[in-house]
Amino acid sequence: MGQGRPPGTGVVVRNWYPLPVAGSEAGGRVFADLMRLAEMVEAGQPGWTRRVFSPEYLRSRELIWELMGSAGLEVRRDPAGNLIGTLPGTAPDQAALILGSHTDTVAGGGRFDGPCGVMAAIEAVRRIRERGGRPRRTIWVVDFLGEEPNDFGISCVGSRAAAGHLSPEHLRLVDGGGRTLAEALAQMGGDPDRIAEARWPKGAASAYLELHVEQGTRLEEAGRGLAVVTAIAGIHRAEIRLEGRADHAGTAPMAGRSDALLAAAEVSLEVEQLGLRGGLGVATVGRLELVPNSPNVVAERATLIAEYRSGDPSWLSATDELLQEVVSQVPSRRGVRGQLSWLSREDPTLCAEELSSVLLASAREIGEEPLQLASWAGHDAVQVAAICPVAMLFVPSRGGRSHCPEEWTDPQQVEVGTRALAAAVTRLAV
Amino acid sequence: MGQGRPPGTGVVVRNWYPLPVAGSEAGGRVFADLMRLAEMVEAGQPGWTRRVFSPEYLRSRELIWELMGSAGLEVRRDPAGNLIGTLPGTAPDQAALILGSHTDTVAGGGRFDGPCGVMAAIEAVRRIRERGGRPRRTIWVVDFLGEEPNDFGISCVGSRAAAGHLSPEHLRLVDGGGRTLAEALAQMGGDPDRIAEARWPKGAASAYLELHVEQGTRLEEAGRGLAVVTAIAGIHRAEIRLEGRADHAGTAPMAGRSDALLAAAEVSLEVEQLGLRGGLGVATVGRLELVPNSPNVVAERATLIAEYRSGDPSWLSATDELLQEVVSQVPSRRGVRGQLSWLSREDPTLCAEELSSVLLASAREIGEEPLQLASWAGHDAVQVAAICPVAMLFVPSRGGRSHCPEEWTDPQQVEVGTRALAAAVTRLAV
Repeated sequence: MGQGRPPGTGVVVRNWYPLPVAGSEAGGRVFADLMRLAEMVEAGQPGWTRRVFSPEYLRSRELIWELMGSAGLEVRRDPAGNLIGTLPGTAPDQAALILGSHTDTVAGGGRFDGPCGVMAAIEAVRRIRERGGRPRRTIWVVDFLGEEPNDFGISCVGSRAAAGHLSPEHLRLVDGGGRTLAEALAQMGGDPDRIAEARWPKGAASAYLELHVEQGTRLEEAGRGLAVVTAIAGIHRAEIRLEGRADHAGTAPMAGRSDALLAAAEVSLEVEQLGLRGGLGVATVGRLELVPNSPNVVAERATLIAEYRSGDPSWLSATDELLQEVVSQVPSRRGVRGQLSWLSREDPTLCAEELSSVLLASAREIGEEPLQLASWAGHDAVQVAAICPVAMLFVPSRGGRSHCPEEWTDPQQVEVGTRALAAAVTRLAV
Repeated sequence: MGQGRPPGTGVVVRNWYPLPVAGSEAGGRVFADLMRLAEMVEAGQPGWTRRVFSPEYLRSRELIWELMGSAGLEVRRDPAGNLIGTLPGTAPDQAALILGSHTDTVAGGGRFDGPCGVMAAIEAVRRIRERGGRPRRTIWVVDFLGEEPNDFGISCVGSRAAAGHLSPEHLRLVDGGGRTLAEALAQMGGDPDRIAEARWPKGAASAYLELHVEQGTRLEEAGRGLAVVTAIAGIHRAEIRLEGRADHAGTAPMAGRSDALLAAAEVSLEVEQLGLRGGLGVATVGRLELVPNSPNVVAERATLIAEYRSGDPSWLSATDELLQEVVSQVPSRRGVRGQLSWLSREDPTLCAEELSSVLLASAREIGEEPLQLASWAGHDAVQVAAICPVAMLFVPSRGGRSHCPEEWTDPQQVEVGTRALAAAVTRLAV
């Protein structure tokens, strides 16, 4: 178990079992749960791939359901396909404490981004139950559906619905195979006709805590085991469509071409320059599609997605303007028509100071002095912040690697994060 | 008939019938044949698509067979899938005169690249027969199988076999669906086990003439109706593989990335610079594939094809060296590993001077003063040049457009080319 690896990946899986975890016997459980889930991957895909609308993702959530159930949670699936495990508290008039994250991955992704937070939350509940206690405040553990971007062009599907922000327009989005998001949701056990019922009632949630891997190197470089997140970077995504002219790659003279591929090359390099401005953000072109994409035809059309992130709203809006200038000016020098459309523009999310203080105190209680960091990655917490205060804990990522098969967090580091999360739950709910 | 257009194309088909062709009533026939063939396209594909191993291509050759037959040619299909129509001459000891071109298209292609030469050759034979003559020299009209690049990664399949250059290795090439080229050939009525018999016997052919559309603007700009081709550009194609590192597009700092997409952008722009050197060639990147091609993941791998063409062998070999320098130096600045492998390197082909003189005289006989041009596109004639002297005639392409639905040659221009070809056939064979 766990020593195998999915086909198509060059990652070496360490012999992780028995677990060299300091402390209680319970310490090995979170990591063992993570490795059980990691075995449920899409055949023929590289790395540890379990994309949101794949059959393997659907099947893997039976494991989540089973783990929640055996931890003493009452499990249900909401109309958005979120799995919600409830541990009823003794004071039903108090709003619930919510713990959550996600278990889907990007294509060619890793084993920690997402599942780490879900497994730590389940373990935190297990430990409360093992101590024989029943919390004062009701606790929910949520495995949100589809946090990663998907073929419908949106991310955070489940948490968006919980916040009441999954609109009928979203449900009508179509993937490459002609399927609507509504149909895909139904295939995952959701009920798109009742999507409004997935919205958490006003006042139902008192606070949301999410543990996640850092996906960066700041903890590793500082030699620390934990970070409390101060803010989550805003993400803007724009689709840039470049319309050139298809021509014979032999007979069309160099001077008269309208080459969409070369325009896309220049735009992509300009996007990099935008990301290098002032050290306040990052900017990436990760996706580029060409038509006809044939070696002997000058490219007629290129469609790329530029995304950029920052914790600074003014940096983001300045980048919006600069990118529009790039798209209106750079391709036209080549006789290529550039068109920009926004896919999403999310402002940075501030974590709640009072909740972050609880996380800080909980970390210190277990002997850790956490860093305080902004998150460069988006999280379900961004959506949930529309309903209640949110706070996040980071555990380290080896070499900062993420969204790749090599993504790794040591078992001891997962345990430290779980203990801090459990301590915070005790402070807030027990 | 002919006023329809295949789905997915924005091309406006002019109301071409009745034909405004000057001169004989026969003048309308070539164009009418072209438009009949153009109706046989792949459903659901843009433009006028009839790719080499499609069922529509197979079916369309029944029309070619019928046209050859009704022109008085004895038709057979050789083991390479070439259709060969023979008009026996009165002097069987004289080597045959070969006329030919192809009728397959690229995806999203047009109606003239290839078919124009086949239809003009059939019409030239028709006119000889109508004048009641039987040629001294045997004439072959050849519709070569699959001149355009295909999923097996080679072009000129049929003419390559005629030259004896379709090897067992070629026949074992596999397409994306796991089919071998041998299997695909058999599906097109070929006989891969007897492929050696498709090779034209030494001395069987005296000369090869091919009429083709220019696919460029030189005739249009000079206001001329015909060109005699002096040489056909050599084509070199290299696959360039760029290996970077997949990283989270939010959490990986700009400075530490190994972004394969940005490396591909820089390499593509360098390839353009190579093409702009000295006006002696053209260079294109038309195909680029990215992994994982996801908006929020820094690209791990980019694979692109660089192709360049020139009539000058020393320009081509200098470009080989410069491209290798680019691939070894440019990506490494970004921590991306570049690797180049040659897909093909074909030297320029010189047309035979004595044959070109006959074409020149034939053009002047019908009142045209042709340009003398090098061809930037590859043609079946390049393969045939290994067996016998070759020469080519070009007719104009409106706006130089080719390999696209807008490809167009006026009926009068097709007729002028046909008359010049027929005059040359009379000089060489009758």
